[in-house]
Amino acid sequence: MPGEGNLYQTLIEAALARLEATGSMPATLAELAELAEVPLEDVSGIFGSLQNLREGLIYQGIALLNDSLRQGVVHSGSVKPDAQLRSLARSYAIWASLNPALFRVIVDGLNRPMAEGSTLYRFTMSMRDLFERKLREMRDLGLIRHEADLAPILLVILCVVKGANVLLLNRKTEPWLSDDPRPVVQIADEMFGYLIDNLLVTGTAQAA
Amino acid sequence: MPGEGNLYQTLIEAALARLEATGSMPATLAELAELAEVPLEDVSGIFGSLQNLREGLIYQGIALLNDSLRQGVVHSGSVKPDAQLRSLARSYAIWASLNPALFRVIVDGLNRPMAEGSTLYRFTMSMRDLFERKLREMRDLGLIRHEADLAPILLVILCVVKGANVLLLNRKTEPWLSDDPRPVVQIADEMFGYLIDNLLVTGTAQAA
Repeated sequence: MPGEGNLYQTLIEAALARLEATGSMPATLAELAELAEVPLEDVSGIFGSLQNLREGLIYQGIALLNDSLRQGVVHSGSVKPDAQLRSLARSYAIWASLNPALFRVIVDGLNRPMAEGSTLYRFTMSMRDLFERKLREMRDLGLIRHEADLAPILLVILCVVKGANVLLLNRKTEPWLSDDPRPVVQIADEMFGYLIDNLLVTGTAQAA
Repeated sequence: MPGEGNLYQTLIEAALARLEATGSMPATLAELAELAEVPLEDVSGIFGSLQNLREGLIYQGIALLNDSLRQGVVHSGSVKPDAQLRSLARSYAIWASLNPALFRVIVDGLNRPMAEGSTLYRFTMSMRDLFERKLREMRDLGLIRHEADLAPILLVILCVVKGANVLLLNRKTEPWLSDDPRPVVQIADEMFGYLIDNLLVTGTAQAA
């Protein structure tokens, strides 16, 4: 159906503009129709429900975030897996801080039950695969000791990513950080850098 | 006013029973009045609003959690700060898994802006003080190298605690853990143990 793709994009962009301006999605499809200057029946034909609109925004958000992560790793210009992980973390924090409203929609979704096969489920699993692959590369290079079990390291990373999500959203109101004047990207960078240096890389210095 | 303290406790316990049975607080003060078999005007006189009831539950929850953390550290029977931190983490995870509904109310509160001086603000800051004190003790004992800056370690711990909160709530639906059959307490224990062993304790093996 020619034109429907464009209409979909128009509606996503209108919802996104609204989200960025106010921090909230349109409250009804009628509101979205008004914002986008599109007849309500066309909006309903494409999204059907606010939940579908939310999923459309998440899909868009994950596409932008993934693109930013890829660019970050490419721009790092390094083939070293630990340097790539640092670039990944930095790109993630920068994207989150530049897109707070969309990031909040994504994190809200990540912190709820995810349907298998959904955009967020697939994103989560692809992140795990990526981390696991980089940890294996680090082990192959001797940056992590040879006999190390990667499972608990992956668990720590999972927990840190989940915690960083909350921190990136609530940096301004987090009591622990009330006396830290730095931007959240810098805080996340120091934190993740410390983690890689001490949790992973120096693991090689430890006896078996 | 004699008797008011008892009535307060009666209402908190009724709200807590409701929360544990259904996962939700009473939706109105009238519902709480009915559950507790207390006149609505008495309920309104004590709480005034659902928000005040929520704060009462949080206060109760933090009191129970703190008590459980203290007992955990005492029962560990150790004066070693790293062993005490492990016991603390274990008690925290056990309490969270035994009190999922109350823990959810606490974590929801921790992930929103906290008023300075509120129960959650004070809890958060007292946890930071405790972690900082234990890290200093570990540094004094040589478990963390002498010249180490504790600030980034505290940041990692903050992030891990925030991530563990989400994990403890959503263990069943977290895609990364879908092929891990272990109870969340065991997963948290392995994760935190790994963190202490590799992030903190082996820091001593690293060159300055």
